[in-house]
Amino acid sequence: MYPNWILQRAYLTPLRCALTYEGQTWTFQELNELSMKRARQLTALGVKQKDRIAIMGPSTSGLIVMIYACMHLQCEMVMLNRRLSKSEIAYQLEDSQAVTVIVADEDAKKLPTNSLAHHLFSAVEQSSEQAVDVAKEWSIAQTTSIMYTSGTTGFPKGVRQTVGNHQASATSSVLNLGLQADDTWLCAVPLFHISGFSILVRSLLYGNKVQLYEHFDVDTIAPNIIDGSATYMSVVAVTLERILSALEQRSAQASPHFKMILAGGGPVPMDYLKRARALHLAVAQTYGMTETSSQTATLASEDALHKIGSAGKPLFFNQIKILEPNAQGEGEICIRGPHVTPGYIGRFAQKSSTIEGWLHTGDVGYIDEDGYLYVVDRRADLIISGGENIYPAEIENVLLAHSAVKEAGVCGIDHERWGQVPIAFVVLKQQVSIEQLLAFCQINLAKYKIPKEIIVIDELPRNGAKKLLRRKLAELLPQERSLH
Amino acid sequence: MYPNWILQRAYLTPLRCALTYEGQTWTFQELNELSMKRARQLTALGVKQKDRIAIMGPSTSGLIVMIYACMHLQCEMVMLNRRLSKSEIAYQLEDSQAVTVIVADEDAKKLPTNSLAHHLFSAVEQSSEQAVDVAKEWSIAQTTSIMYTSGTTGFPKGVRQTVGNHQASATSSVLNLGLQADDTWLCAVPLFHISGFSILVRSLLYGNKVQLYEHFDVDTIAPNIIDGSATYMSVVAVTLERILSALEQRSAQASPHFKMILAGGGPVPMDYLKRARALHLAVAQTYGMTETSSQTATLASEDALHKIGSAGKPLFFNQIKILEPNAQGEGEICIRGPHVTPGYIGRFAQKSSTIEGWLHTGDVGYIDEDGYLYVVDRRADLIISGGENIYPAEIENVLLAHSAVKEAGVCGIDHERWGQVPIAFVVLKQQVSIEQLLAFCQINLAKYKIPKEIIVIDELPRNGAKKLLRRKLAELLPQERSLH
Repeated sequence: MYPNWILQRAYLTPLRCALTYEGQTWTFQELNELSMKRARQLTALGVKQKDRIAIMGPSTSGLIVMIYACMHLQCEMVMLNRRLSKSEIAYQLEDSQAVTVIVADEDAKKLPTNSLAHHLFSAVEQSSEQAVDVAKEWSIAQTTSIMYTSGTTGFPKGVRQTVGNHQASATSSVLNLGLQADDTWLCAVPLFHISGFSILVRSLLYGNKVQLYEHFDVDTIAPNIIDGSATYMSVVAVTLERILSALEQRSAQASPHFKMILAGGGPVPMDYLKRARALHLAVAQTYGMTETSSQTATLASEDALHKIGSAGKPLFFNQIKILEPNAQGEGEICIRGPHVTPGYIGRFAQKSSTIEGWLHTGDVGYIDEDGYLYVVDRRADLIISGGENIYPAEIENVLLAHSAVKEAGVCGIDHERWGQVPIAFVVLKQQVSIEQLLAFCQINLAKYKIPKEIIVIDELPRNGAKKLLRRKLAELLPQERSLH
Repeated sequence: MYPNWILQRAYLTPLRCALTYEGQTWTFQELNELSMKRARQLTALGVKQKDRIAIMGPSTSGLIVMIYACMHLQCEMVMLNRRLSKSEIAYQLEDSQAVTVIVADEDAKKLPTNSLAHHLFSAVEQSSEQAVDVAKEWSIAQTTSIMYTSGTTGFPKGVRQTVGNHQASATSSVLNLGLQADDTWLCAVPLFHISGFSILVRSLLYGNKVQLYEHFDVDTIAPNIIDGSATYMSVVAVTLERILSALEQRSAQASPHFKMILAGGGPVPMDYLKRARALHLAVAQTYGMTETSSQTATLASEDALHKIGSAGKPLFFNQIKILEPNAQGEGEICIRGPHVTPGYIGRFAQKSSTIEGWLHTGDVGYIDEDGYLYVVDRRADLIISGGENIYPAEIENVLLAHSAVKEAGVCGIDHERWGQVPIAFVVLKQQVSIEQLLAFCQINLAKYKIPKEIIVIDELPRNGAKKLLRRKLAELLPQERSLH
């Protein structure tokens, strides 16, 4: 059994600053008191301990208090991605069998119309309170959060992230990055993704401050790196580039107090790393995923330029191996460790997340002679757009659901701003306009998943077994190009 | 499953300095290669993987390589205290059923004459090698080390310290103390005690250097604190005082690079804390024991003077409670957490180490209104002498084994240099000289346990149930006094 993180942190360092947001600050004691109150309010509204509930809202202090309240109640939190379409949210609510949704007022309109009962943040915050006996300790197997991620089939799977997974991730990371009591993690990534959620876990375990922003606004954030008021930050390649540009435009460098940018969610172009170096900005490339509750491997800053493109070495408690490597040493990346999810919920509950203890990622990579991991090819033709994962099969499934579409194939193409964007190829069985297809996608897909182009062709490229060859799709474009 | 610490650390940071000793240095890669070689040599000599073996030697680099070799072989290491008498060692060898003893050449003479087969360090180091398939991962329940500690009965119990216990201790501690890659832990405490052994575990998990000394020599060690070549050090009150005196004599202060002294093994006098403060030397008082694989609670330096005498708050993954507190809030200190031993070996193998998950320490204490732990009274009339635990019953058992002794009672009295020393009271059934009794003790007890005085009296103080009242013993001294 492990202590309730929020209670323990508030006990150990009650007066340390835990959070800043929009000019306000909260100590760990204050966050604990607020979230205990919120837990009593949720109880008054009928939320029971260990209920599975869904939660959605922008990255505000209010969301953090709500998350901590749900942790106090040991609820299994389905973290809804607020960029999703109503039908995608409906799928997750149905699949997870969440008993209720706790939703920020401004996000209520994003819920599907036939959705189950929900509680607005404002209703919870104004509710009366009902006493509840909050557990002082948690079991390592208890599910803290559930995040949906897609795969080859295009059906999102709800991934369990347990107390043990989160703790292992945070402690492994600290053995790599080090720790000082006054470290501050700048958070401008979504809290519903593991990149953001894991910042909260680290804050509770490390006793460090979170500097929270609802949006990534480079003009607000760059100064924190220049003046050293933040010491760590998590980014995706797109946001890293904007930070680099901002520093360059200001002819500024990173403060010596700023320690490290952790860059995840896909490869970081070599050019960015060189520019970062010129700005004295340490960047560590990381490799992780929802199933590993954040980083599995991280490339130390000191290795960034002589191990270009590498995701580094595993964190201390983790192991990585290459399954059935070919002559070049390339094979499927497999991961093992206490940070690996024990499994899924919903329709995939019976599917094992591991084989003999190893998570098979579907990503292809190799480990060089010095033990550094290189990710060569992403799982299931994964498209990474602005740090969001897009699985082609998800988009294809939507297109195939349209009565006019006979076959569909989706691939990613390079994009200056987002890294990649999806484009779709369709074979029709009856007349339809591209506008009609796009309108259909808009109803059923998150905005970032909507194909930037839909191209009608006579036949999709397939192999002898009639399996779709997504990598051949891009070649069907009139000419090689990137979108702007 | 968790990675083999030594392999993983050598993989992650091969070129970082792992150890300095007598002017020599070793990287993690070098220590791994040496200890792998030593594991093959032990294998050639017949040591099997997962064997329970005993190990004894002074704190040298050679002992560390031998310990790491045994870890590679997943041996359960019975860490023999080299200060013990032959009969005490014989007890531990018999009780533990260790299959062999690996002993430093200079310590061979300390082994009981009828002892089981043993291997001298030099014999291992000169042996041929035999290939062995070293495990890349360890189970959390695997016993890494076994250390003997006494209790109310006076019969030492072999305490299991597992992979999980050691990892929990090291990760909990880092969340309290913080971590930087170039931290260096000065080790001048015995490696056979958890205070020293835990420094090795932290080095492997943190990737930090150990600066090892065979003996505590203040003239060698004080300069490391003054020049900041070390950043952490573990001490007992006696050695802390010598460091303070050395700094005062030199009119020197602790380097700003030196971070913290951890003071364990009993209370630290308030006067020491004030002197430390004047020297800019941060001192954290800790509370821990063999059964908790090092620290359970630690008082932060910033609290040292306004929470005088407190052992601080629990480390992050730990919990402490006071059992059945009296009106003053005092009761038995109970401890819970992943660092608590799963149990004992040998004659106490059936004895549970915990009750409903809580370790009952036998120590008496209270927790103040701010959550700080105060240890009021040590378990089983424990005498702490120069950081070594002495249980009165152990000495009484030896005295009672003498044919002339009818009854015996032992207590501790204050001592300027060692904090406390034991003195004994005996009721005789036949004539015997004090010298004869002391000679008998010398055969059967470690030197530090031999009573500083043996006093013959007519009757021991007992309560109505005839239970010995050890605390009344000191009152029987001709006058209150302390020994020098």
